[in-house]
Amino acid sequence: MNNFQFSQPTVCIFGREPESAFKEQLRKRNVKKVLFHYGGGSIKKNGVYDMVSAVLKELNIETIELSGVQPNPRVTLVREGIDICRKNGIDLILAVGGGSVIDSAKGIAVGAAYDGDVWDLYIDKAGESDLKKPLIPVGVVLTIPAAGSESSPGSVLSNDEGLMKRPLNSELIIPVFAVLNPEYTFTLPVYQVACGCSDIMAHMFERYFTRQKNVDVTDRQLEANMRSMLHYSKLAQDFSDDYDIKAEVMWAGTIAHNDMLSCGRSGDWASHNIEHELSAIYDIYHGEGLSIVFPAWIRYCWKDDPERFLQFFKRVFDVDYAFSHAERAINEGIARLENYYTSLGLPIRLSQVEIGEDRLREMADKCVMHRGDSIGNFKKLTADDIYNIYRLAL
Amino acid sequence: MNNFQFSQPTVCIFGREPESAFKEQLRKRNVKKVLFHYGGGSIKKNGVYDMVSAVLKELNIETIELSGVQPNPRVTLVREGIDICRKNGIDLILAVGGGSVIDSAKGIAVGAAYDGDVWDLYIDKAGESDLKKPLIPVGVVLTIPAAGSESSPGSVLSNDEGLMKRPLNSELIIPVFAVLNPEYTFTLPVYQVACGCSDIMAHMFERYFTRQKNVDVTDRQLEANMRSMLHYSKLAQDFSDDYDIKAEVMWAGTIAHNDMLSCGRSGDWASHNIEHELSAIYDIYHGEGLSIVFPAWIRYCWKDDPERFLQFFKRVFDVDYAFSHAERAINEGIARLENYYTSLGLPIRLSQVEIGEDRLREMADKCVMHRGDSIGNFKKLTADDIYNIYRLAL
Repeated sequence: MNNFQFSQPTVCIFGREPESAFKEQLRKRNVKKVLFHYGGGSIKKNGVYDMVSAVLKELNIETIELSGVQPNPRVTLVREGIDICRKNGIDLILAVGGGSVIDSAKGIAVGAAYDGDVWDLYIDKAGESDLKKPLIPVGVVLTIPAAGSESSPGSVLSNDEGLMKRPLNSELIIPVFAVLNPEYTFTLPVYQVACGCSDIMAHMFERYFTRQKNVDVTDRQLEANMRSMLHYSKLAQDFSDDYDIKAEVMWAGTIAHNDMLSCGRSGDWASHNIEHELSAIYDIYHGEGLSIVFPAWIRYCWKDDPERFLQFFKRVFDVDYAFSHAERAINEGIARLENYYTSLGLPIRLSQVEIGEDRLREMADKCVMHRGDSIGNFKKLTADDIYNIYRLAL
Repeated sequence: MNNFQFSQPTVCIFGREPESAFKEQLRKRNVKKVLFHYGGGSIKKNGVYDMVSAVLKELNIETIELSGVQPNPRVTLVREGIDICRKNGIDLILAVGGGSVIDSAKGIAVGAAYDGDVWDLYIDKAGESDLKKPLIPVGVVLTIPAAGSESSPGSVLSNDEGLMKRPLNSELIIPVFAVLNPEYTFTLPVYQVACGCSDIMAHMFERYFTRQKNVDVTDRQLEANMRSMLHYSKLAQDFSDDYDIKAEVMWAGTIAHNDMLSCGRSGDWASHNIEHELSAIYDIYHGEGLSIVFPAWIRYCWKDDPERFLQFFKRVFDVDYAFSHAERAINEGIARLENYYTSLGLPIRLSQVEIGEDRLREMADKCVMHRGDSIGNFKKLTADDIYNIYRLAL
């Protein structure tokens, strides 16, 4: 087990009728001026916009709205938000939406504390030591269980110049509170539910596939949460307004990425980066990119540590083959993983989202750029490896 | 699932060579005067006292020592600590030891913020609203994985007047940081290891035995951690200086009680209170009291919700009987639980710790005192019920 530090400072307000606890968070921080940040307007249809507006109005909080966050959130909108924060003395950025909105809000918070261009922070041209502290805090009202960004230190932004998508990790941008009401997810389209579940699963796969030995407690925690997701993903599509089902998925999604499940281990994260190249160029959903990349990544990497994958497929997917038939068990496991994705309506091959061979080499090269020519901790992957994985996913 | 709020503010510093992270916590809080609180002196033999002293000296932190915390920590020593804090302007209480030392430190913190006698806060004669805030923060250097007090809001104290043992729960006393170095647990006697494991398990049993429906995600998290403990408890006795084994137990113990595993559910906690009467009068270890009480409590209560216990014994203890044989499966499950305790050298009957029939009625009556004549959430237990459970444990 590795040394680690863990705390989970985000106050998660989970359940129905969160208004009074939400107000308490705003009051106790003495919030006066909020940047109300959201996406394409779905929150105006499902009542969440009205709930948030009513709370802000009741507390006499001055509010500036910045909407229009897209999936794969763009640094251009983040720059607008930074400008608003500076000109108006914003004291809380309220992200109302899913992971894209939250990541965009985090980008604004970190960018407002930096003298140069915010993109520098995403391509490691600048870091935490270049920031003016304290940052403007980020609060969250979550509407999509997926990214886990509501209590994580991560933010991923896209830059249309060069079609780049890059992550930033800093404890300084962990949200101070997150309102998690499963009812807010009832109106999510079924395909979005699937993409969210795929993202939640991927956060756990990345953590599970480690070379670190003696991490049994977190292994079992991960397996437990993956089994819950296997069980509830399809139910969340089929019974979209069942509170209890939506609640299980929402909480599993937060746990999956709040770093409790990283304690003592180093995750892999290659698949996330391999996917980011797909969504950067083709603007597909992150969740559908992940359901394409993961089976291919496992096919390419499992022989580097068969026991890890055999344990994974045994404990999570109940693949209980004779121990002498490792390869057969792995193949069955991959088939079950693909069945899980397919049952949710997700693609498992690039051809299903109309991505062909033409730009695979370009994406593979770009994926290792600024990263010392390789990615991944479980197995170091070069541009050639990544190219081979894309080909396996065709 | 119930509504809930969750955060885990304690900064857990886990692993070898924690000195620099420990110093960082003291520095960033600008600590000047510490109450160094510990137990019977085992920390002087295993190097922990020297480590802590060296750190405090290096940072020029003025230190007042208060040692002598006993298992089942006494309110009398807490009163001494409160006095020291008031007279010396202590700005951090550093608990170096196990749950008893931490609970005692929390008692000092809460008592120093209260004008009356600290015991009032443990028998609900006074509450949070009577405290002067902010409280003196509590920091922890943990040497016994057991109570989970290092990141919990709980404290349990004993009062020799009336032989009472009572819990207090308040978010105000959650430790601000906890140093968790598995090496500090190498010298723990094997019987103490067993008592600690029994306590860790009990924290999860109390949470697991709920009447709340639709708590599958936390059910599975609990089952995962219980399985880890089943596996590692005996190993932690047999290989006392194996870092990896000790690390798994230490982290499982913290998770078991940091309230992540309570999210959305209400636990039972009757067995803890039934045990507290035993250790209050007979001064037995909490862990050995629990291994006596739990099998009896399950025998007495399982028929109120057989599915919960069948799921528990199936998923945690692998009892895989025909579903038509519920009672047979439960009996087998209880036998396996008792085998687990016995394999660690723990008692499973009152007679094994030389407790007879004579004071059972007295303890049963005392157990419901100040508590509206019943305890427990899974099943409301009256004094008569508790008496019957004690008898089942004879």
